[in-house]
Amino acid sequence: MLTYTKFIQTNPFPILVSMTHYQIFRNIQKHISLTEAEKQHIISQCDVLDIQKKQRILEQGKLCKKLYFVESGSLRAFNLSAEGKESTIMFAVKDWWITDMNSFVNQKPALLSIEALEPCQIISLDFHVLEQHYQFIPKLERFFRIIFQNAYIREQLRALQSISLTTEERYRQFVENYPAIVEKVTQKQIASYLGVTPEFLSSVKKK
Amino acid sequence: MLTYTKFIQTNPFPILVSMTHYQIFRNIQKHISLTEAEKQHIISQCDVLDIQKKQRILEQGKLCKKLYFVESGSLRAFNLSAEGKESTIMFAVKDWWITDMNSFVNQKPALLSIEALEPCQIISLDFHVLEQHYQFIPKLERFFRIIFQNAYIREQLRALQSISLTTEERYRQFVENYPAIVEKVTQKQIASYLGVTPEFLSSVKKK
Repeated sequence: MLTYTKFIQTNPFPILVSMTHYQIFRNIQKHISLTEAEKQHIISQCDVLDIQKKQRILEQGKLCKKLYFVESGSLRAFNLSAEGKESTIMFAVKDWWITDMNSFVNQKPALLSIEALEPCQIISLDFHVLEQHYQFIPKLERFFRIIFQNAYIREQLRALQSISLTTEERYRQFVENYPAIVEKVTQKQIASYLGVTPEFLSSVKKK
Repeated sequence: MLTYTKFIQTNPFPILVSMTHYQIFRNIQKHISLTEAEKQHIISQCDVLDIQKKQRILEQGKLCKKLYFVESGSLRAFNLSAEGKESTIMFAVKDWWITDMNSFVNQKPALLSIEALEPCQIISLDFHVLEQHYQFIPKLERFFRIIFQNAYIREQLRALQSISLTTEERYRQFVENYPAIVEKVTQKQIASYLGVTPEFLSSVKKK
Protein backbone atom coordinates (compact mmCIF):
# COMPACT_ATOMS: atom_id res chain seq x y z
CA MET A 1 0.00 0.00 0.00
CA LEU A 2 1.28 3.47 -0.84
CA THR A 3 1.86 5.68 2.16
CA TYR A 4 0.12 9.02 2.15
CA THR A 5 3.43 10.89 1.65
CA LYS A 6 4.29 8.64 -1.27
CA PHE A 7 0.85 9.25 -2.76
CA ILE A 8 1.38 13.01 -2.56
CA GLN A 9 4.90 12.71 -4.03
CA THR A 10 3.72 10.51 -6.89
CA ASN A 11 0.51 12.44 -7.48
CA PRO A 12 0.55 12.84 -11.27
CA PHE A 13 -1.75 15.85 -11.28
CA PRO A 14 0.10 19.16 -11.33
CA ILE A 15 -1.63 21.93 -9.43
CA LEU A 16 -2.69 24.27 -12.19
CA VAL A 17 -5.94 25.76 -10.97
CA SER A 18 -7.41 26.39 -7.58
CA MET A 19 -10.22 24.04 -6.65
CA THR A 20 -12.02 26.63 -4.55
CA HIS A 21 -14.78 27.13 -7.11
CA TYR A 22 -16.17 23.67 -6.32
CA GLN A 23 -18.88 23.74 -3.66
CA ILE A 24 -17.89 20.19 -2.64
CA PHE A 25 -14.65 21.49 -1.10
CA ARG A 26 -16.42 24.21 0.86
CA ASN A 27 -18.67 21.41 2.13
CA ILE A 28 -15.76 19.13 3.10
CA GLN A 29 -13.83 22.02 4.67
CA LYS A 30 -16.66 22.69 7.13
CA HIS A 31 -15.19 19.75 9.04
CA ILE A 32 -11.61 19.05 7.83
CA SER A 33 -8.84 20.88 5.95
CA LEU A 34 -7.63 19.73 2.55
CA THR A 35 -4.47 20.75 0.72
CA GLU A 36 -4.69 21.86 -2.91
CA ALA A 37 -2.98 18.58 -3.89
CA GLU A 38 -5.63 16.57 -2.05
CA LYS A 39 -8.43 18.54 -3.67
CA GLN A 40 -6.83 18.05 -7.08
CA HIS A 41 -6.54 14.31 -6.43
CA ILE A 42 -10.16 14.00 -5.24
CA ILE A 43 -11.63 15.93 -8.16
CA SER A 44 -9.51 13.98 -10.67
CA GLN A 45 -11.19 10.79 -9.41
CA CYS A 46 -14.74 12.18 -9.56
CA ASP A 47 -17.16 12.77 -12.40
CA VAL A 48 -18.68 16.23 -12.67
CA LEU A 49 -22.03 15.83 -14.44
CA ASP A 50 -24.59 18.24 -15.83
CA ILE A 51 -28.02 16.65 -15.83
CA GLN A 52 -31.42 17.76 -17.05
CA LYS A 53 -34.74 18.09 -15.25
CA LYS A 54 -36.40 14.64 -14.78
CA GLN A 55 -33.12 12.85 -15.63
CA ARG A 56 -32.44 9.91 -13.29
CA ILE A 57 -29.02 9.23 -11.83
CA LEU A 58 -30.22 6.03 -10.12
CA GLU A 59 -32.96 3.54 -11.04
CA GLN A 60 -34.67 1.45 -8.36
CA GLY A 61 -33.65 -2.22 -8.70
CA LYS A 62 -30.17 -1.47 -10.09
CA LEU A 63 -26.89 -1.37 -8.14
CA CYS A 64 -25.99 2.07 -6.80
CA LYS A 65 -22.27 2.53 -7.37
CA LYS A 66 -22.00 6.25 -6.65
CA LEU A 67 -22.29 8.76 -3.85
CA TYR A 68 -23.51 12.10 -5.20
CA PHE A 69 -22.84 15.67 -4.13
CA VAL A 70 -25.10 18.47 -5.39
CA GLU A 71 -23.08 21.45 -6.78
CA SER A 72 -26.28 23.15 -7.97
CA GLY A 73 -29.94 22.32 -8.54
CA SER A 74 -32.13 19.89 -6.60
CA LEU A 75 -33.06 16.21 -6.67
CA ARG A 76 -35.36 13.81 -4.92
CA ALA A 77 -35.07 10.12 -4.01
CA PHE A 78 -38.24 8.04 -4.12
CA ASN A 79 -39.50 4.49 -3.92
CA LEU A 80 -42.14 3.02 -6.19
CA SER A 81 -44.13 0.25 -4.46
CA ALA A 82 -45.45 -2.91 -6.17
CA GLU A 83 -48.88 -1.22 -6.11
CA GLY A 84 -47.49 1.79 -7.98
CA LYS A 85 -47.42 4.14 -4.98
CA GLU A 86 -44.55 6.65 -5.07
CA SER A 87 -42.98 7.66 -1.71
CA THR A 88 -40.46 10.47 -1.54
CA ILE A 89 -37.73 9.47 0.90
CA MET A 90 -35.37 12.42 0.70
CA PHE A 91 -34.60 15.65 -1.11
CA ALA A 92 -31.17 17.09 -1.87
CA VAL A 93 -30.36 20.68 -2.79
CA LYS A 94 -27.04 22.51 -3.37
CA ASP A 95 -24.40 21.46 -0.81
CA TRP A 96 -26.10 18.14 0.06
CA TRP A 97 -24.99 14.52 -0.38
CA ILE A 98 -27.43 11.94 -1.75
CA THR A 99 -27.41 8.22 -2.58
CA ASP A 100 -29.21 4.96 -1.78
CA MET A 101 -26.85 4.26 1.12
CA ASN A 102 -27.82 0.60 1.59
CA SER A 103 -27.26 -0.15 -2.08
CA PHE A 104 -24.03 1.91 -2.19
CA VAL A 105 -22.42 0.40 0.93
CA ASN A 106 -23.75 -3.17 0.78
CA GLN A 107 -23.93 -3.44 -3.02
CA LYS A 108 -27.56 -4.58 -2.98
CA PRO A 109 -30.23 -3.54 -5.52
CA ALA A 110 -31.37 0.05 -4.95
CA LEU A 111 -34.76 0.59 -3.27
CA LEU A 112 -34.73 4.18 -4.51
CA SER A 113 -34.69 6.09 -7.77
CA ILE A 114 -33.02 9.52 -7.76
CA GLU A 115 -34.35 12.15 -10.17
CA ALA A 116 -33.40 15.77 -10.93
CA LEU A 117 -36.15 18.29 -10.07
CA GLU A 118 -34.42 20.91 -12.27
CA PRO A 119 -31.15 21.17 -14.26
CA CYS A 120 -28.36 20.17 -11.84
CA GLN A 121 -24.61 19.95 -11.63
CA ILE A 122 -23.58 16.97 -9.52
CA ILE A 123 -20.30 15.35 -8.54
CA SER A 124 -20.23 11.57 -8.31
CA LEU A 125 -17.80 9.51 -6.24
CA ASP A 126 -17.40 5.83 -7.07
CA PHE A 127 -17.62 3.28 -4.21
CA HIS A 128 -14.13 1.83 -4.80
CA VAL A 129 -12.57 5.27 -5.28
CA LEU A 130 -14.05 6.40 -1.96
CA GLU A 131 -12.58 3.32 -0.24
CA GLN A 132 -9.16 4.31 -1.69
CA HIS A 133 -9.63 7.89 -0.52
CA TYR A 134 -10.17 6.62 3.03
CA GLN A 135 -6.74 4.92 2.81
CA PHE A 136 -4.81 7.77 1.24
CA ILE A 137 -6.55 10.73 2.89
CA PRO A 138 -7.56 9.25 6.27
CA LYS A 139 -9.02 12.54 7.51
CA LEU A 140 -11.89 11.84 5.10
CA GLU A 141 -12.91 9.19 7.65
CA ARG A 142 -13.54 12.08 10.05
CA PHE A 143 -15.47 14.03 7.44
CA PHE A 144 -17.78 11.16 6.54
CA ARG A 145 -18.09 10.14 10.21
CA ILE A 146 -19.63 13.58 10.82
CA ILE A 147 -21.73 13.45 7.61
CA PHE A 148 -23.19 10.01 8.43
CA GLN A 149 -23.65 10.96 12.11
CA ASN A 150 -25.75 13.95 11.00
CA ALA A 151 -27.65 11.85 8.45
CA TYR A 152 -28.43 9.32 11.19
CA ILE A 153 -29.66 12.11 13.48
CA ARG A 154 -31.88 13.45 10.69
CA GLU A 155 -33.44 10.03 10.08
CA GLN A 156 -33.86 9.31 13.81
CA LEU A 157 -35.65 12.65 14.27
CA ARG A 158 -37.79 11.94 11.23
CA ALA A 159 -38.84 8.53 12.59
CA LEU A 160 -39.65 10.17 15.92
CA GLN A 161 -41.62 12.99 14.32
CA SER A 162 -43.62 10.64 12.09
CA ILE A 163 -44.72 8.79 15.21
CA SER A 164 -45.18 11.63 17.69
CA LEU A 165 -46.15 14.79 15.74
CA THR A 166 -49.30 15.77 13.85
CA THR A 167 -49.05 16.43 10.09
CA GLU A 168 -49.34 20.16 10.81
CA GLU A 169 -46.40 20.05 13.23
CA ARG A 170 -44.34 17.92 10.85
CA TYR A 171 -44.99 20.32 7.97
CA ARG A 172 -43.96 23.27 10.14
CA GLN A 173 -40.76 21.44 11.20
CA PHE A 174 -39.98 20.61 7.57
CA VAL A 175 -40.37 24.26 6.50
CA GLU A 176 -38.22 25.42 9.43
CA ASN A 177 -35.47 22.84 8.93
CA TYR A 178 -35.26 22.83 5.13
CA PRO A 179 -36.22 26.28 3.77
CA ALA A 180 -33.99 25.75 0.71
CA ILE A 181 -35.91 22.59 -0.18
CA VAL A 182 -39.37 24.13 0.32
CA GLU A 183 -38.54 26.74 -2.33
CA LYS A 184 -37.60 24.10 -4.89
CA VAL A 185 -40.16 21.31 -4.67
CA THR A 186 -43.89 20.97 -5.29
CA GLN A 187 -46.51 20.57 -2.56
CA LYS A 188 -47.25 17.12 -3.99
CA GLN A 189 -43.63 16.09 -3.38
CA ILE A 190 -43.66 17.47 0.17
CA ALA A 191 -46.93 15.58 0.85
CA SER A 192 -45.28 12.40 -0.46
CA TYR A 193 -42.29 13.00 1.85
CA LEU A 194 -44.61 13.52 4.85
CA GLY A 195 -46.59 10.39 3.91
CA VAL A 196 -49.95 12.17 3.38
CA THR A 197 -52.07 13.03 0.32
CA PRO A 198 -51.60 16.46 -1.34
CA GLU A 199 -55.25 17.24 -0.46
CA PHE A 200 -54.65 16.49 3.22
CA LEU A 201 -51.50 18.66 3.27
CA SER A 202 -53.43 21.47 1.59
CA SER A 203 -56.21 21.30 4.21
CA VAL A 204 -53.57 21.31 6.99
CA LYS A 205 -51.87 24.40 5.51
CA LYS A 206 -55.21 26.27 5.29
CA LYS A 207 -55.55 25.90 9.05
CA MET B 1 -1.97 19.00 21.43
CA LEU B 2 -0.26 15.74 22.31
CA THR B 3 0.73 13.66 19.34
CA TYR B 4 -0.53 10.09 19.28
CA THR B 5 2.98 8.69 19.91
CA LYS B 6 3.41 11.03 22.86
CA PHE B 7 0.05 9.93 24.23
CA ILE B 8 1.09 6.27 24.06
CA GLN B 9 4.49 7.07 25.66
CA THR B 10 2.91 9.07 28.47
CA ASN B 11 -0.03 6.72 28.93
CA PRO B 12 -0.12 6.37 32.72
CA PHE B 13 -1.99 3.06 32.68
CA PRO B 14 0.33 0.05 32.87
CA ILE B 15 -0.91 -2.95 30.90
CA LEU B 16 -1.74 -5.40 33.66
CA VAL B 17 -4.68 -7.36 32.29
CA SER B 18 -5.87 -8.20 28.83
CA MET B 19 -8.95 -6.28 27.75
CA THR B 20 -10.25 -9.10 25.59
CA HIS B 21 -13.05 -10.02 27.98
CA TYR B 22 -14.88 -6.79 27.10
CA GLN B 23 -17.42 -7.23 24.30
CA ILE B 24 -16.88 -3.57 23.31
CA PHE B 25 -13.41 -4.39 21.95
CA ARG B 26 -14.66 -7.35 19.92
CA ASN B 27 -17.22 -4.89 18.52
CA ILE B 28 -14.62 -2.22 17.70
CA GLN B 29 -12.21 -4.79 16.24
CA LYS B 30 -14.76 -5.87 13.65
CA HIS B 31 -13.64 -2.74 11.80
CA ILE B 32 -10.27 -1.54 13.19
CA SER B 33 -7.37 -2.95 15.23
CA LEU B 34 -6.52 -1.64 18.68
CA THR B 35 -3.34 -2.19 20.69
CA GLU B 36 -3.61 -3.33 24.32
CA ALA B 37 -2.45 0.18 25.35
CA GLU B 38 -5.25 1.77 23.37
CA LYS B 39 -7.83 -0.59 24.85
CA GLN B 40 -6.51 0.14 28.33
CA HIS B 41 -6.73 3.87 27.67
CA ILE B 42 -10.28 3.65 26.30
CA ILE B 43 -11.61 1.53 29.14
CA SER B 44 -9.93 3.75 31.75
CA GLN B 45 -11.97 6.67 30.39
CA CYS B 46 -15.30 4.78 30.36
CA ASP B 47 -17.74 3.84 33.07
CA VAL B 48 -18.78 0.20 33.26
CA LEU B 49 -22.23 0.10 34.85
CA ASP B 50 -24.49 -2.66 36.11
CA ILE B 51 -28.12 -1.57 35.92
CA GLN B 52 -31.37 -3.16 36.97
CA LYS B 53 -34.52 -3.95 35.01
CA LYS B 54 -36.63 -0.78 34.43
CA GLN B 55 -33.69 1.47 35.45
CA ARG B 56 -33.32 4.47 33.14
CA ILE B 57 -29.96 5.64 31.84
CA LEU B 58 -31.51 8.63 30.06
CA GLU B 59 -34.62 10.70 30.82
CA GLN B 60 -36.47 12.53 28.04
CA GLY B 61 -35.99 16.31 28.41
CA LYS B 62 -32.52 16.06 29.98
CA LEU B 63 -29.18 16.44 28.22
CA CYS B 64 -27.72 13.18 26.94
CA LYS B 65 -24.01 13.25 27.71
CA LYS B 66 -23.16 9.60 27.02
CA LEU B 67 -22.94 7.10 24.21
CA TYR B 68 -23.74 3.61 25.53
CA PHE B 69 -22.51 0.17 24.51
CA VAL B 70 -24.39 -2.94 25.68
CA GLU B 71 -22.06 -5.58 27.17
CA SER B 72 -25.03 -7.74 28.22
CA GLY B 73 -28.79 -7.44 28.58
CA SER B 74 -31.21 -5.35 26.52
CA LEU B 75 -32.67 -1.83 26.52
CA ARG B 76 -35.19 0.21 24.63
CA ALA B 77 -35.37 3.90 23.73
CA PHE B 78 -38.81 5.50 23.66
CA ASN B 79 -40.56 8.83 23.37
CA LEU B 80 -43.52 9.92 25.50
CA SER B 81 -45.77 12.37 23.65
CA ALA B 82 -47.63 15.30 25.26
CA GLU B 83 -50.76 13.12 25.03
CA GLY B 84 -49.06 10.34 26.98
CA LYS B 85 -48.49 8.04 24.01
CA GLU B 86 -45.31 5.98 24.26
CA SER B 87 -43.43 5.21 21.00
CA THR B 88 -40.52 2.79 20.98
CA ILE B 89 -37.83 4.18 18.68
CA MET B 90 -35.10 1.58 19.02
CA PHE B 91 -33.97 -1.49 20.88
CA ALA B 92 -30.42 -2.42 21.83
CA VAL B 93 -29.14 -5.86 22.82
CA LYS B 94 -25.64 -7.21 23.58
CA ASP B 95 -23.04 -5.78 21.16
CA TRP B 96 -25.16 -2.74 20.16
CA TRP B 97 -24.60 1.00 20.65
CA ILE B 98 -27.45 3.20 21.87
CA THR B 99 -28.01 6.89 22.69
CA ASP B 100 -30.22 9.85 21.78
CA MET B 101 -27.82 10.89 19.00
CA ASN B 102 -29.29 14.36 18.46
CA SER B 103 -29.04 15.19 22.15
CA PHE B 104 -25.56 13.62 22.45
CA VAL B 105 -24.02 15.34 19.41
CA ASN B 106 -25.85 18.68 19.46
CA GLN B 107 -26.26 18.94 23.24
CA LYS B 108 -30.02 19.53 23.00
CA PRO B 109 -32.64 18.11 25.39
CA ALA B 110 -33.22 14.40 24.79
CA LEU B 111 -36.39 13.38 22.95
CA LEU B 112 -35.93 9.82 24.21
CA SER B 113 -35.78 7.94 27.47
CA ILE B 114 -33.64 4.78 27.58
CA GLU B 115 -34.70 1.98 29.92
CA ALA B 116 -33.29 -1.46 30.75
CA LEU B 117 -35.60 -4.36 29.77
CA GLU B 118 -33.62 -6.70 32.08
CA PRO B 119 -30.47 -6.48 34.23
CA CYS B 120 -27.72 -5.09 31.95
CA GLN B 121 -24.04 -4.32 31.93
CA ILE B 122 -23.35 -1.24 29.86
CA ILE B 123 -20.28 0.84 29.05
CA SER B 124 -20.73 4.60 28.81
CA LEU B 125 -18.53 6.99 26.84
CA ASP B 126 -18.70 10.69 27.69
CA PHE B 127 -19.13 13.18 24.81
CA HIS B 128 -15.92 15.12 25.56
CA VAL B 129 -13.92 11.94 26.14
CA LEU B 130 -15.04 10.61 22.77
CA GLU B 131 -13.94 13.88 21.10
CA GLN B 132 -10.49 13.38 22.72
CA HIS B 133 -10.37 9.78 21.57
CA TYR B 134 -10.90 10.97 17.98
CA GLN B 135 -7.77 13.13 18.37
CA PHE B 136 -5.52 10.60 20.06
CA ILE B 137 -6.74 7.43 18.35
CA PRO B 138 -7.75 8.74 14.90
CA LYS B 139 -8.67 5.28 13.61
CA LEU B 140 -11.74 5.55 15.86
CA GLU B 141 -12.99 8.03 13.24
CA ARG B 142 -13.07 5.09 10.83
CA PHE B 143 -14.83 2.87 13.34
CA PHE B 144 -17.56 5.38 14.10
CA ARG B 145 -17.82 6.34 10.40
CA ILE B 146 -18.82 2.72 9.75
CA ILE B 147 -21.09 2.54 12.84
CA PHE B 148 -22.98 5.74 11.91
CA GLN B 149 -23.09 4.75 8.23
CA ASN B 150 -24.79 1.47 9.23
CA ALA B 151 -27.11 3.27 11.67
CA TYR B 152 -28.10 5.67 8.88
CA ILE B 153 -28.80 2.74 6.54
CA ARG B 154 -30.94 1.08 9.22
CA GLU B 155 -33.00 4.26 9.72
CA GLN B 156 -33.33 4.92 5.97
CA LEU B 157 -34.59 1.36 5.43
CA ARG B 158 -36.97 1.74 8.36
CA ALA B 159 -38.43 4.97 6.92
CA LEU B 160 -38.81 3.24 3.56
CA GLN B 161 -40.45 0.16 5.07
CA SER B 162 -42.87 2.18 7.20
CA ILE B 163 -44.08 3.85 3.99
CA SER B 164 -43.98 0.99 1.52
CA LEU B 165 -44.59 -2.27 3.43
CA THR B 166 -47.66 -3.70 5.17
CA THR B 167 -47.52 -4.31 8.94
CA GLU B 168 -47.24 -8.06 8.24
CA GLU B 169 -44.23 -7.54 5.96
CA ARG B 170 -42.62 -5.14 8.44
CA TYR B 171 -43.08 -7.61 11.31
CA ARG B 172 -41.52 -10.39 9.21
CA GLN B 173 -38.57 -8.11 8.31
CA PHE B 174 -38.10 -7.18 11.97
CA VAL B 175 -38.01 -10.85 13.04
CA GLU B 176 -35.57 -11.69 10.23
CA ASN B 177 -33.26 -8.75 10.85
CA TYR B 178 -33.25 -8.70 14.67
CA PRO B 179 -33.79 -12.26 15.99
CA ALA B 180 -31.82 -11.42 19.17
CA ILE B 181 -34.23 -8.56 19.93
CA VAL B 182 -37.40 -10.57 19.27
CA GLU B 183 -36.34 -13.04 21.97
CA LYS B 184 -35.93 -10.31 24.55
CA VAL B 185 -38.84 -7.90 24.17
CA THR B 186 -42.62 -8.10 24.60
CA GLN B 187 -45.13 -8.07 21.74
CA LYS B 188 -46.41 -4.76 23.10
CA GLN B 189 -42.95 -3.23 22.67
CA ILE B 190 -42.60 -4.59 19.13
CA ALA B 191 -46.05 -3.19 18.27
CA SER B 192 -44.96 0.19 19.64
CA TYR B 193 -41.80 0.03 17.48
CA LEU B 194 -43.86 -0.81 14.38
CA GLY B 195 -46.31 2.00 15.19
CA VAL B 196 -49.39 -0.24 15.56
CA THR B 197 -51.53 -1.39 18.51
CA PRO B 198 -50.66 -4.72 20.22
CA GLU B 199 -54.12 -6.02 19.14
CA PHE B 200 -53.42 -5.20 15.50
CA LEU B 201 -50.00 -6.88 15.63
CA SER B 202 -51.59 -9.94 17.23
CA SER B 203 -54.22 -10.18 14.46
CA VAL B 204 -51.46 -9.80 11.83
CA LYS B 205 -49.42 -12.61 13.43
CA LYS B 206 -52.45 -14.95 13.51
CA LYS B 207 -52.64 -14.67 9.72
